[in-house]
Amino acid sequence: MKLPRYKRSSPVSYAFGATLTYELLKVSPNLIKRVFLRPNQKHGHDIDSIIAQLIAFNIPIIENTKAFNVLGAKDNCLIIAEFDKPAMQLEATAETPHIVLVNPSDAGNLGTIIRSAVAFGYNNLAIITPATDHFDPKVVRASMGAIFHINIELFTSFDDYLAKYENINSSQKRLLYSFMINPEAVNLADVTLNDGSFSLIFGNEASGLPQEFADKTQAVFISQTPLVDSLNLSIAAGIAMYNFRQKLQ
Amino acid sequence: MKLPRYKRSSPVSYAFGATLTYELLKVSPNLIKRVFLRPNQKHGHDIDSIIAQLIAFNIPIIENTKAFNVLGAKDNCLIIAEFDKPAMQLEATAETPHIVLVNPSDAGNLGTIIRSAVAFGYNNLAIITPATDHFDPKVVRASMGAIFHINIELFTSFDDYLAKYENINSSQKRLLYSFMINPEAVNLADVTLNDGSFSLIFGNEASGLPQEFADKTQAVFISQTPLVDSLNLSIAAGIAMYNFRQKLQ
Repeated sequence: MKLPRYKRSSPVSYAFGATLTYELLKVSPNLIKRVFLRPNQKHGHDIDSIIAQLIAFNIPIIENTKAFNVLGAKDNCLIIAEFDKPAMQLEATAETPHIVLVNPSDAGNLGTIIRSAVAFGYNNLAIITPATDHFDPKVVRASMGAIFHINIELFTSFDDYLAKYENINSSQKRLLYSFMINPEAVNLADVTLNDGSFSLIFGNEASGLPQEFADKTQAVFISQTPLVDSLNLSIAAGIAMYNFRQKLQ
Repeated sequence: MKLPRYKRSSPVSYAFGATLTYELLKVSPNLIKRVFLRPNQKHGHDIDSIIAQLIAFNIPIIENTKAFNVLGAKDNCLIIAEFDKPAMQLEATAETPHIVLVNPSDAGNLGTIIRSAVAFGYNNLAIITPATDHFDPKVVRASMGAIFHINIELFTSFDDYLAKYENINSSQKRLLYSFMINPEAVNLADVTLNDGSFSLIFGNEASGLPQEFADKTQAVFISQTPLVDSLNLSIAAGIAMYNFRQKLQ
């Protein structure tokens, strides 16, 4: 057996534990290549039910402890699903908001942002590289399975993203909102929306967005006291996504 | 020299790096007992300026590599401040909102919540034990120094918190809002406020709040799709704190 070992260049990634494996089976069973099961363990109902589904889908089940060691699973992780990384494109239609992350560098933050995005009805995420690998098992885990509900597309520059997605059709452009500190920035609370044809843009954890984004897009700020320099990226993105969603209702 | 070593029972904790040390010097220089400096390193202006202040405040500076190893500092950490853990009480006056965390278990989450709390003007945090140690250097670091701007008080039960702080004065009780899934819960978007005399209550990362909180307090939910089970605790707290603050303006 070829042992699993995760690399960014690998065509497959790994979902650790029963919850993620169950979610993947529910959403995209066709992506699962094989499943590793820790041998000689008592299983609860959750894993029994997963095994029944794996058999129904004809997905190989491999009982092997070494796979868990190689992948660095914790002792309480009893099951790991190996899945094909899907090639995805964003939905380009009107009324479909996008999230754009420029150079996100932390896997935990990225997974948490994906979890919040899906929770608030954002199912399309553009990532401007260089960026942390969005299929890293740490991102999959921090997303709590939300990554199986979102389209993710990579771009080597923000201009490449705009070239492909700024024009929704011949008469409508996508509205662009960049979260950043800038003299021209408007307060998040004062933004008004007509429909869901917009993109919310966030910068890197340490450096934020370059000031040139204030020229190409509408800068927006989240009102705060001066006692802290800035919000954590995943907190700022969560607040922005929730409040933009509320503006549509 | 007695080497530093962090324990929950220790009367002191540690602020790693120039940013946190600078913040502590600005807010509470009297708490700093001594500062460790990595020997034979080139310093930038930030550390030169810190050293000048330490000398002015007569705070001992100890050049010692072992202290960095014992405390598990990263190689790029050049300075660590040892500080007294202050004994704190919450402000009990009207117009002073409280945050109440019931059994928070993750140090990174707790630090991030403290950072968001101070950013949105919440300077009083009650923690119901058992809970992760709020002076763990991991919490101090994740708070980005915001922990030096907030009062934190521990209680062994929620009822103990209420006994001390629910009555603001003989004619006014603090309004209590619990973030939880419950049939009686109201939508965060529909909550209206007259003033800042309220508490926002959040449960444990894995288990949330016990259902009995819906009897003692007003349950509130953050509207989301059913595609994810729940929001990350620090995201839910960030959204709640931001939106309650907006309701006061």
